[in-house]
Amino acid sequence: LLSKQPVKTTEKITIHKGEVGPVWEYPTSSLSCVVADPKKGSKLYGLKSYIEYQVTPNNTNRSVNHRYKHFDWLCERLLIKFGSAIPIPSLPDKQVAGRFEEEFIKMRMERLQSWMNRMCHHPVISNSEVFQLFITCRDEKEWKLGKRKTEKDDVVGIMIFSTMEPPAEDIGLLEAEQKVEMFSKFTKAMDDGVKELLSVGQEHWKSCAGALPKEYQKMGKAMQNLSQVFATSGYEGESILTDPLTEVGKTFEEIASIFAEQPKKDLHYLMETNQEYKGLLGCFPDIISVHKGAIEKAKEGDKLVALNKVTPQEKNTMVNRIGTMSYAFQAEMNHFHNNRIYDYNSVIQLYLQQQIEFHEMIAAKLKQALTHFTVQQ
Amino acid sequence: LLSKQPVKTTEKITIHKGEVGPVWEYPTSSLSCVVADPKKGSKLYGLKSYIEYQVTPNNTNRSVNHRYKHFDWLCERLLIKFGSAIPIPSLPDKQVAGRFEEEFIKMRMERLQSWMNRMCHHPVISNSEVFQLFITCRDEKEWKLGKRKTEKDDVVGIMIFSTMEPPAEDIGLLEAEQKVEMFSKFTKAMDDGVKELLSVGQEHWKSCAGALPKEYQKMGKAMQNLSQVFATSGYEGESILTDPLTEVGKTFEEIASIFAEQPKKDLHYLMETNQEYKGLLGCFPDIISVHKGAIEKAKEGDKLVALNKVTPQEKNTMVNRIGTMSYAFQAEMNHFHNNRIYDYNSVIQLYLQQQIEFHEMIAAKLKQALTHFTVQQ
Repeated sequence: LLSKQPVKTTEKITIHKGEVGPVWEYPTSSLSCVVADPKKGSKLYGLKSYIEYQVTPNNTNRSVNHRYKHFDWLCERLLIKFGSAIPIPSLPDKQVAGRFEEEFIKMRMERLQSWMNRMCHHPVISNSEVFQLFITCRDEKEWKLGKRKTEKDDVVGIMIFSTMEPPAEDIGLLEAEQKVEMFSKFTKAMDDGVKELLSVGQEHWKSCAGALPKEYQKMGKAMQNLSQVFATSGYEGESILTDPLTEVGKTFEEIASIFAEQPKKDLHYLMETNQEYKGLLGCFPDIISVHKGAIEKAKEGDKLVALNKVTPQEKNTMVNRIGTMSYAFQAEMNHFHNNRIYDYNSVIQLYLQQQIEFHEMIAAKLKQALTHFTVQQ
Repeated sequence: LLSKQPVKTTEKITIHKGEVGPVWEYPTSSLSCVVADPKKGSKLYGLKSYIEYQVTPNNTNRSVNHRYKHFDWLCERLLIKFGSAIPIPSLPDKQVAGRFEEEFIKMRMERLQSWMNRMCHHPVISNSEVFQLFITCRDEKEWKLGKRKTEKDDVVGIMIFSTMEPPAEDIGLLEAEQKVEMFSKFTKAMDDGVKELLSVGQEHWKSCAGALPKEYQKMGKAMQNLSQVFATSGYEGESILTDPLTEVGKTFEEIASIFAEQPKKDLHYLMETNQEYKGLLGCFPDIISVHKGAIEKAKEGDKLVALNKVTPQEKNTMVNRIGTMSYAFQAEMNHFHNNRIYDYNSVIQLYLQQQIEFHEMIAAKLKQALTHFTVQQ
């Protein structure tokens, strides 16, 4: 809190006063990166093989290739540099066994994409040197140099606040404390809510993709079996029952596979979004404790002045810096809320739309099956 | 097989030659009875109480009252009189505990109704004296007299075949045997098929009325909880998420109860029909063994003639009677097939129609929920 300022850095993080309160400076055009085209590569004359993903930013449209361990390095650097101010969610889990399997690569790529989306949409992160290095550097030598430079960067941890330029307006300690307290409560409650939804979603997935399709399959088979038995009756006019009954049985088998595939089309995204938020929410306790710690220190300011441990001037500097931190905190809070509202709006609407299509498709299948009955009763 | 004929009876059962083979003589207008209005009655000055059902036949439109034990008596008499030729399904189970509970009375009445329908639709049964007594007698004394007369009736068991008047056409022993064999195989296979459908239907019922509604309920609650947490964010514009999310949560709770109620509207009837057929099919082994026994006896005819145990004339009488039995058997077989095709056609169509309505209703509910989102993404 009392370190020398300004630090030698060209990176400046501006905080504006927006309608909702302090906000980061957002770029005029939104950055996005497509993670695609996973390819097996190898080095050490084929002794080591790995998967390389193509990352294409929309601003340059020139793709760079990165292995999972490059993403991992980026994530680690972002955490070191911004982790006191901005939640940096973990990457999808490292995995050794089965990491060359198609299903796994697809899933990992989807999650790297979500992670990249979140990083791209964050104005501070997407604008940082390390992130830009990652998405633009195509030259091996340049990449190595950039990495080395990044690793020597000492504007990390709480030093990041020293690069921030808040609006020229004071924030009281009490207000700063209240904001932190309020957001702390919010994130804890949201964490519980997200975990609840994940747990019931998991349970629902099992029914939808497991038990129900099996039952529809069995119903379909039972109807077809019964129809086959009926066909042996030798009774004239039997086919007015057996023909439609067989069709109904087949329809139930079709419905079984529609059921089994459905969660991948809707519940999957609801689950992934909540998983992402669970990850983000897991980053806040550290951020909150950085802020709470700084506020506690500043509150002791008067005492320290009385004990001659700090000068009144130094105490004022401390309070000012808490102001900056609080601006940063609120900017990040507002960024989080804004994204959260967008993300949940999107994913819940997607879920509903897909569920509507699903039920309409089943109704259509059943209607089709009904047309096979020639005798209406 | 060699008893004196004709028995003193006014009841004659005619068998015609129809398009599908031998058929019973069907009445021109179909009989039906409504079982309704269960009322608690009592006797012995209130010491014994019971439930009385109102039975109203469509031909007289004059209702009679009957207790379960009257139905039970009727069922027993029908079994004694016609059980060798016609399947008489059991009544719904006797039950002592909870027999005055509304749910139980409703269920029993529904099953008595199904049982009465089946009896009414059978031309031989509905035309019988005992059945007519049951549906028309309103006088206590007359009922007692009728009961006593019925219980003395000796045209029972295999004697019933002696009252039958088949077409004047011979049926060979071999043909009779083949018909029995074929139908025996059919009923065994159908019994397996029906039991399979009942078992998977039972399992499906549990999911539809048990696990799934619980899951939808939980999903709905989780969404509403999350929405409540979001509402505490203090972020401007939060309501564009919380308002629709709360509505979606409520919709999921509504869907939960739609799910829970649905099996009573469709699966229930599929199950009841199959239960009925399981009961009917359970009657056939006895009927089949009566016929097989008679055929075996007749096949021994030549041997018995050679041993002078029967005269050639008596042997011919035997073969003729097997002919009558075979006609009766085929008439009943055709009656069974005809009803089966009708019943399964009806119940499967009902099931599909109800399932279509169900899925359409859920789609409509979800569409309604979707309209609460003011921001489309």
